[in-house]
Amino acid sequence: MSTDPDYYWNQAFLEAQKAFSINEVPVGAVMVRNGEIVGRGYNQRISKNNALLHAEMVAIADACTQLGTWRLDDCDMYVTLEPCAMCTGALIESRLRKVYFAALDDKTGCVLSQYTLLDDKLLPHRVDYEYIPQARCQHIMREFFEDKRG
Amino acid sequence: MSTDPDYYWNQAFLEAQKAFSINEVPVGAVMVRNGEIVGRGYNQRISKNNALLHAEMVAIADACTQLGTWRLDDCDMYVTLEPCAMCTGALIESRLRKVYFAALDDKTGCVLSQYTLLDDKLLPHRVDYEYIPQARCQHIMREFFEDKRG
Repeated sequence: MSTDPDYYWNQAFLEAQKAFSINEVPVGAVMVRNGEIVGRGYNQRISKNNALLHAEMVAIADACTQLGTWRLDDCDMYVTLEPCAMCTGALIESRLRKVYFAALDDKTGCVLSQYTLLDDKLLPHRVDYEYIPQARCQHIMREFFEDKRG
Repeated sequence: MSTDPDYYWNQAFLEAQKAFSINEVPVGAVMVRNGEIVGRGYNQRISKNNALLHAEMVAIADACTQLGTWRLDDCDMYVTLEPCAMCTGALIESRLRKVYFAALDDKTGCVLSQYTLLDDKLLPHRVDYEYIPQARCQHIMREFFEDKRG
């Protein structure tokens, strides 16, 4: 157990590195409850042939299994990239307390970039969020896409 | 194999009835490719303790497994209720060709009701859609919530 956000970020970044190592878009996430990591995930959509397996989705499913509930209202997520529409919706559906993210996704991000789904108050449940920029989480994305182009 | 949309709707409605029978919000979905059903799902979020298990998500995962690909760009979905943010995002992420839905969801629908995610052209992939109202799909929702309240 730890109450140091650096620890959660290190773990989320480790998850992103796992995705990078198998040639997936490098995104990682951990779920934290009472200082303990209760779920983790990295992007596996291509390697597992399943469009749903973004890092956040894997971490949510893992936490639901570990905690034995669909309702994660005492959990926070640390994720290396801004969530897309699917993942932002999943945070709402799981009643997450708060999501922290470390890089923006200009094309598909739905918290600050393309939509502001968590601010608009159009959907019935509210999830708090905080954008905490981190160079390593931005760099790993750039490195991945430069490698693929190069 | 069938090319009759009534057949797909009957199957989607059967899925919704499965959800109803286990006291879940009654939503059902089928995935169709070249006239064949290649995925099906009903809402199981409470019974399986997993916030992600909306009907559409189960049907997408099923189709990905059956077809061995994350990319469903030659598939259409028939679903009894308008998709939420998570599910609309999942349709985009799976590159679905078209989604048909049979009832509106005023509170959480993200195709026509609270958001118009598939019309806005803000996200990089486009999914076609058509709203085809069906009394039975609307009634089963009303019956479910009236039973719960009563």
